[in-house]
Amino acid sequence: MTRVFNFSAGPAALPEVVLQQAAAEMLDWHGSGMSVMEMSHRGKEFIAIHAQAEKDLRELMGIPTNYKVLFLQGGAIGENAIVPMNLLRGKASFDIVNTGEWSKKTIKEGKKYAKVNVVATSEADNFTSVPAFETWKRDPDAAYLHICSNETIGGVEYNFTPDTGDVPLVADMSSNILSRPIDVSKYGLIYAGAQKNIGPAGLTIVIVREDLIGQALPITPSAFDFKQQADADSMYNTPPTYAIYIAGLVFQWIKAQGGLAAMEAHNRKKAAVLYDYLAASSFYSNPIAEGCRSLMNVPFRLKDEALDEAFLKGAKERGMVQLKGHRSVGGMRASIYNAMPVAGVEALVAYMKEFEAAHA
Amino acid sequence: MTRVFNFSAGPAALPEVVLQQAAAEMLDWHGSGMSVMEMSHRGKEFIAIHAQAEKDLRELMGIPTNYKVLFLQGGAIGENAIVPMNLLRGKASFDIVNTGEWSKKTIKEGKKYAKVNVVATSEADNFTSVPAFETWKRDPDAAYLHICSNETIGGVEYNFTPDTGDVPLVADMSSNILSRPIDVSKYGLIYAGAQKNIGPAGLTIVIVREDLIGQALPITPSAFDFKQQADADSMYNTPPTYAIYIAGLVFQWIKAQGGLAAMEAHNRKKAAVLYDYLAASSFYSNPIAEGCRSLMNVPFRLKDEALDEAFLKGAKERGMVQLKGHRSVGGMRASIYNAMPVAGVEALVAYMKEFEAAHA
Repeated sequence: MTRVFNFSAGPAALPEVVLQQAAAEMLDWHGSGMSVMEMSHRGKEFIAIHAQAEKDLRELMGIPTNYKVLFLQGGAIGENAIVPMNLLRGKASFDIVNTGEWSKKTIKEGKKYAKVNVVATSEADNFTSVPAFETWKRDPDAAYLHICSNETIGGVEYNFTPDTGDVPLVADMSSNILSRPIDVSKYGLIYAGAQKNIGPAGLTIVIVREDLIGQALPITPSAFDFKQQADADSMYNTPPTYAIYIAGLVFQWIKAQGGLAAMEAHNRKKAAVLYDYLAASSFYSNPIAEGCRSLMNVPFRLKDEALDEAFLKGAKERGMVQLKGHRSVGGMRASIYNAMPVAGVEALVAYMKEFEAAHA
Repeated sequence: MTRVFNFSAGPAALPEVVLQQAAAEMLDWHGSGMSVMEMSHRGKEFIAIHAQAEKDLRELMGIPTNYKVLFLQGGAIGENAIVPMNLLRGKASFDIVNTGEWSKKTIKEGKKYAKVNVVATSEADNFTSVPAFETWKRDPDAAYLHICSNETIGGVEYNFTPDTGDVPLVADMSSNILSRPIDVSKYGLIYAGAQKNIGPAGLTIVIVREDLIGQALPITPSAFDFKQQADADSMYNTPPTYAIYIAGLVFQWIKAQGGLAAMEAHNRKKAAVLYDYLAASSFYSNPIAEGCRSLMNVPFRLKDEALDEAFLKGAKERGMVQLKGHRSVGGMRASIYNAMPVAGVEALVAYMKEFEAAHA
């Protein structure tokens, strides 16, 4: 068995020790005689797994007690509908900052349920930056203000947490949750699809301040009503049990690494290796404004896109996969989430140098 | 490692060979150097897994080419909202037969979106039968007629497929899909949460006649718009990739057993062992009308419910778990889905005899 360095934007690489443990426990979890996949979600074994996962996540992120943690389904695209359904609270509109592809999806879907007020956009610079906070035209009557804290496709990340006052801040953190410490109390709601830094696709984590829930639109499906799910410990419907189990193993792995401060140091180190090389190279380029460059998703272009295919082929031969950029952006993208080791980024840069030397 | 006989109603037992293969492939699927959990849903490896799973399901169930097969999220409770959102097609109401707990959930949720016309109910006999088709007060203008083909909690199963003429028949088959051959062409839409006969919780399969989709209500979340998902091969949002992979292994296991005809013989044999013993016993009873008894979920009661706890304790000591009935019904329930071997049911009956002899 040879494991590759997997730069996929999601579903993405998981810590090898997590996969080893999952394989070892597949037929018999802790002497229960069952796979976690086979357990009733209402049995004492799974309830313990679920409770431990929530406890570890609360500890890792420092989630205050007045926030609910929900383990749901539907992903970020689901949340684009589910969040307004739950969070409008009698108001007619929400604010949003447009920083790229994922913001655009949120705007389009949100219009089904509310008036969507784009308070700032980086469209003018082709979504290569985060608009300065001072320029945002915020509405004090908005139900909430939505940001995408890391644009997975564009590779743009917030380096600040906006202070939106009495208007709750909602963040799609799908691709940078758990990558560094954040102050949860500054947010009204955080959500994240699991398939980047948490675990398998099919699980969506929602962290929501409890005073914001309980006023869902009447057309909200019960399975996606945050209050009904909070009251039922995320078991109003059968939760994605196996994905929650894997997420729990990932949380334990992060704790063993030293928590989110250690993750941030690890992620900054990897990103520096790659960005420093990109900055020094005239063969490769990264279009994102300094200070807005994502620690998680690093898009880059070759000088001559006719070489893209040869670059990807050579990478694959060296055990590095999923480096092709999103179809809407082109070029390359290296996603270097928590589970990507420093060695993976070093191997990528070594190959990039080799390729540059051969083709420059 | 000792594996138990797991009678859980869902999530439920899976074929041991499926779990063995999943464990063996956990770190490296077919030499890809990745776990299936780590694969991009748009990469060629996962696209092949997904396509094979759909192909095998189509072959097993004989799904006609004018039906779409969708791999979604949200479970049966999600579908209680998602189906009317998608299938009302400008009409104001749908018909439903009330056969118990799951029908009641469908009625309650459906009222958010439509007028719900209960065409027949078995409430008078405490949901121990399926109302005779001749008595159904059907509305020819209904958008569709909904049935729950197997009531997981009550243990009541349809032994016929109603002919609803031009009104499309919708069936929640969560707990009996793949247990026997059916004629898909008699249905407008079939859905099933995976966690009984298909795979891990978090995956929902929808089989829908293509002329019925494309008229979703404007408030339908895109992630749950059948037409948008059909047009995107269930990849409008990131699908629950690992659950689809496990489902695919289960489909291959069913094919290796001889397909759905062989599954039906297997399931009838197991059910006969249990129902025949219950019929002959004066210590245990099953309340369900003959002809409506589920092949999948067998509820039964002890003569004296004061003995319930001792019964469950003894069962657990003998490696048989999850036999407690649903809280809304009480007593016991043995769920004996496809993956339950005959030996499991024989072991249960042997223990029931032993317990009866000791306590009668």
